[in-house]
Amino acid sequence: MAAIPLDALHAARQRIQGLVRQTPLDLSPSLSRRLGVPVWLKLESQQITGSFKLRGATNALAQLSDEEKWRGVVTASTGNHGRALAHAASQLGVKAVVCLSDLVPANKVEAIRSLGAEVRIVGHSQDDAQAEAERIARDQGAIFLPPFDHPAIIAGQGTLGLEILDQCPDVRDVLVPLSGGGLFAGIGLALKGIDPDIRLHGVSMRRGAAMYASLQAGHPVEVEELPTLADSLGGGIGLDNRHTFALTRELCDRVHLLDEPLIAAGIRHAYREERQVLEGAAAVGIAALLEGVVEPRGPTVVVVSGRNVDIEQHLRVLNGADR
Amino acid sequence: MAAIPLDALHAARQRIQGLVRQTPLDLSPSLSRRLGVPVWLKLESQQITGSFKLRGATNALAQLSDEEKWRGVVTASTGNHGRALAHAASQLGVKAVVCLSDLVPANKVEAIRSLGAEVRIVGHSQDDAQAEAERIARDQGAIFLPPFDHPAIIAGQGTLGLEILDQCPDVRDVLVPLSGGGLFAGIGLALKGIDPDIRLHGVSMRRGAAMYASLQAGHPVEVEELPTLADSLGGGIGLDNRHTFALTRELCDRVHLLDEPLIAAGIRHAYREERQVLEGAAAVGIAALLEGVVEPRGPTVVVVSGRNVDIEQHLRVLNGADR
Repeated sequence: MAAIPLDALHAARQRIQGLVRQTPLDLSPSLSRRLGVPVWLKLESQQITGSFKLRGATNALAQLSDEEKWRGVVTASTGNHGRALAHAASQLGVKAVVCLSDLVPANKVEAIRSLGAEVRIVGHSQDDAQAEAERIARDQGAIFLPPFDHPAIIAGQGTLGLEILDQCPDVRDVLVPLSGGGLFAGIGLALKGIDPDIRLHGVSMRRGAAMYASLQAGHPVEVEELPTLADSLGGGIGLDNRHTFALTRELCDRVHLLDEPLIAAGIRHAYREERQVLEGAAAVGIAALLEGVVEPRGPTVVVVSGRNVDIEQHLRVLNGADR
Repeated sequence: MAAIPLDALHAARQRIQGLVRQTPLDLSPSLSRRLGVPVWLKLESQQITGSFKLRGATNALAQLSDEEKWRGVVTASTGNHGRALAHAASQLGVKAVVCLSDLVPANKVEAIRSLGAEVRIVGHSQDDAQAEAERIARDQGAIFLPPFDHPAIIAGQGTLGLEILDQCPDVRDVLVPLSGGGLFAGIGLALKGIDPDIRLHGVSMRRGAAMYASLQAGHPVEVEELPTLADSLGGGIGLDNRHTFALTRELCDRVHLLDEPLIAAGIRHAYREERQVLEGAAAVGIAALLEGVVEPRGPTVVVVSGRNVDIEQHLRVLNGADR
């Protein structure tokens, strides 16, 4: 594990300024009333490309040397990281290749292509796409940028933690969606680096929480990936995880696991009370507070990570379904 | 009509800085594809208190003398202006009284009270509440701040126009929800003051569009107020209108009137394609573009004015209803 000093987060913030939005921190009157402390939502759902992923992708790209930029970048994400990398690359004039399997729906392919990336469709699974991305990196010298387990990605996501401290200096508890750990580790480095007494909560879905299972086991493990409303939190952390597992273990005070009906309740609350359209992964912090799993100590910040939801599924949930 | 020079808008912008958010200008890929020009959404729905009204209210309050601040302010709005005035007054340490009739639902009363304003419940109609507000202004010396027909309110809303020009300097067409004309006049003063070739579109609902009827008549007229999805655009412009009628007549290139099913389509489009929860009044610009009433000339900005919608009605519209 490479050490990621607080200075790297401050440098990242300078580097991505103007390319990434400082997102609002909005008071939630309904959650504040319920908990008896001020509860704030860090609305990264209003970030450009609709998720926090743009921070890490932009930081990683902006750090490349001119020679590396000339070689271009490659990844295999179908989701928020792929979208963010495509956008950041177009902003910085870097060629980006996103490898996708032929199972990825046409609208997702089009979304990434319209952000300026070259889309390479290969094979019938995410593993096939991943193998192709690695082949391109190996054979053509493109820089492979993984979605979370990379110091520049972690430092980029950490800029979100620095913003939280600027916007709410007396924060006591922070809830962060926990998946591969890039967002969690970045925010944790910022918060604990500046005030070790801030309590950091990771929140995941109960179905297929790879980081939680790995923390329990004491080392990275694989878990079965299952359908969940918080699909952005799915996927493994990598058996050869180099950074985010150790950082999460060090920085995390508690992990909360949520059943699907609770995540659905979080999505509905965000819509009804906050007028926000959120993906399930972004609603888990709200859901955890509604479930009462966090004992409030003072000002509480919920990281709301993105809005890129399947809208048919979202409307089903608004109408009462749990999936 | 008092002249409102461009300098007044720049001064307002300085005055409200830090109290009012610079809202994002987001590209709409779906509308851009449809029109063949870049279409941007000015998301004032993400303003503090959920609407643009905070700009004018904050500017008007911040301009009061210490003696006037000590006397306090009063208004009779049940909606976005009342909410904005209550918030701005609490931020600036000014006492605010909001007069409401006993017909106003308890949740709206509570929302305004929770923002720190004194709520005075009197009579059984908006007219009764208005009369009480005027009585308080007369008898107690409080400053009456109307929702739109006031130079400081207009200049405050005009800061939105200055932001649009900063964020999209090559804008050609701007669509603005048209009601009492405070927002429209403010934005128009900014845009036409800097580039007279920018085309300014007012958009209203067909049912009860008082400003449109007044423009047609050549003087302020009353219209019957009818239920509409764009309820924030309802209400008269005042037969004794002093500023916004003349300004709108001078600054407006075209007015578009929309039937209710089109407004519903705008709300649904904002949800499905932009992931935004909007009130009907805020969706009229999107609806007008979807209906094809604007011939695109170049970069187009749609002012999205607020998100304070009755959520049960919003969900009915998402599910296909037109009211």
